[in-house]
Amino acid sequence: MKFEVTILGSSSATPVFNRNPTAQLLNCNEKCYLIDCGEGTQQQLIKFNLKAARIDYIFISHLHGDHYFGLIGLLSSMHLNGRTKPMQIFGPPQLLEILEIQFKYSDTNLRYQLDFFPTNTSASEVIFENSDLSVKTIILNHRIPCTGFIFEQKQRQHKLIKDKADTISMAYYTLLKKGMDVELPDGKMLLSNDYTTPAEAPRSYAYCSDTLFDERYFPTIKNCDTLYHEATFMNDLLDRANETHHTTALQAGEIAKINHVHKLLIGHFSSRYKTLQMLLEEAQSVFENTELAIEGRTFQL
Amino acid sequence: MKFEVTILGSSSATPVFNRNPTAQLLNCNEKCYLIDCGEGTQQQLIKFNLKAARIDYIFISHLHGDHYFGLIGLLSSMHLNGRTKPMQIFGPPQLLEILEIQFKYSDTNLRYQLDFFPTNTSASEVIFENSDLSVKTIILNHRIPCTGFIFEQKQRQHKLIKDKADTISMAYYTLLKKGMDVELPDGKMLLSNDYTTPAEAPRSYAYCSDTLFDERYFPTIKNCDTLYHEATFMNDLLDRANETHHTTALQAGEIAKINHVHKLLIGHFSSRYKTLQMLLEEAQSVFENTELAIEGRTFQL
Repeated sequence: MKFEVTILGSSSATPVFNRNPTAQLLNCNEKCYLIDCGEGTQQQLIKFNLKAARIDYIFISHLHGDHYFGLIGLLSSMHLNGRTKPMQIFGPPQLLEILEIQFKYSDTNLRYQLDFFPTNTSASEVIFENSDLSVKTIILNHRIPCTGFIFEQKQRQHKLIKDKADTISMAYYTLLKKGMDVELPDGKMLLSNDYTTPAEAPRSYAYCSDTLFDERYFPTIKNCDTLYHEATFMNDLLDRANETHHTTALQAGEIAKINHVHKLLIGHFSSRYKTLQMLLEEAQSVFENTELAIEGRTFQL
Repeated sequence: MKFEVTILGSSSATPVFNRNPTAQLLNCNEKCYLIDCGEGTQQQLIKFNLKAARIDYIFISHLHGDHYFGLIGLLSSMHLNGRTKPMQIFGPPQLLEILEIQFKYSDTNLRYQLDFFPTNTSASEVIFENSDLSVKTIILNHRIPCTGFIFEQKQRQHKLIKDKADTISMAYYTLLKKGMDVELPDGKMLLSNDYTTPAEAPRSYAYCSDTLFDERYFPTIKNCDTLYHEATFMNDLLDRANETHHTTALQAGEIAKINHVHKLLIGHFSSRYKTLQMLLEEAQSVFENTELAIEGRTFQL
């Protein structure tokens, strides 16, 4: 099953040349989930040839502009481009008020249904589930209420081995795909392992931006497969990171290591860094399997 | 005196590849005036190496998103980048509410003073004057209240001819520069024409977006030097233009001709047009001195 994320923005606070504010597009089994939506996200989607129309779920971490100023434009363009499918948006409660006031004054009556799900910014909760995955909030520690999100795939059923399955009644498929053995009326056993192959192990993607290093959210991200973590500064600016409630690249590496994740992606880089290699190397000094989450890159999760 | 406009966006409604929503940067005597501010305007300023910090006045025509969704991001970045100079914003009264709610929820206290001047969207008025120019609204006919803006340079003083001026007392300069002749105590006359050269004639730039063809605003733009006029559609879509309260390229040409302007710039192109040559030729078929107002071009006014 496809499970990948494409980075649309890697910049913190203000855009800089070639770096846009935060947004990521998660594709799980050909369903598209947008995570944060900084200004210019719709232009980034066009640039990377990704179809905005395919997005059905949007998750907004917090109400600093570099994480949501692009949302109203994206929603407006979907309306103008004839969208009729519903859209589900998850974010801090005040986000809806910000959207509605702008629709009101532009006299916009959306052609599609907008379902808004206010997030509880003080306790980690499962906020969404479908047959592919569940989404749980991560309570981060920022200057204003802020949640990350962890996307956890569900355990998939075993896959039938076609040649073997063709020799038995389809009535037994459901149980065998669930990994259960079947006893026939004559006492003969059909073993799930003989007729199916196990599905891939479910994988998980945790998205943490913006936050102080804070052990309280570690249990939510522990052992996840891929962790995206903000790394706004180099560690020589640790005081600045603490003051602004951000993380350094070194800390991001430590968080990955402490929580036994498989892979770390870092992003949300301060505009002061013209190049990013130093940030990558600093994180890799404590957690080697780190990559830069920069514009246009797609990571298999 | 410098009097030029740089186009930051030429797209209507939704951005398309290489075309951004509307914004223009007017430079008059090294003071910078931003006209409309679609999403991604701050990124366009970076792309074209224009300093956002130099903008001291912003004029917003109306509250359709393609004309203002970039404003909150631009103002926020100015704050984060340490701006302390005041900013003056002119636009529909509801614009301030939209800005304030977003500053409130992001817990942003601007480091600079934001002075807001609500526009009267039902009567053309002079809304701003300084020593270089005056700005008057143009009452357009759109689906929601919408004003254009006409920037009219003031008559400059005559310039002293240095060699000749050195032969007389500085006490006479003020009158001579105003074009007035001076009678000396001995009855001798100092003629302004002998000691000065006339200043350039003042020029004007009218900005009209978005609107139906409507003769009621013609008196405000009559005889202006450069007219920017929206030209969303080709004339074969005149019905669509009327329905959405927009103008065709042919109509833009007619408006330029009827109002005896010197030069026409057209923009605000529908995303359906992959190339723009047809729109240009349609406008030129009635008004030859027409150019495309597309991203990155600077026009001397």
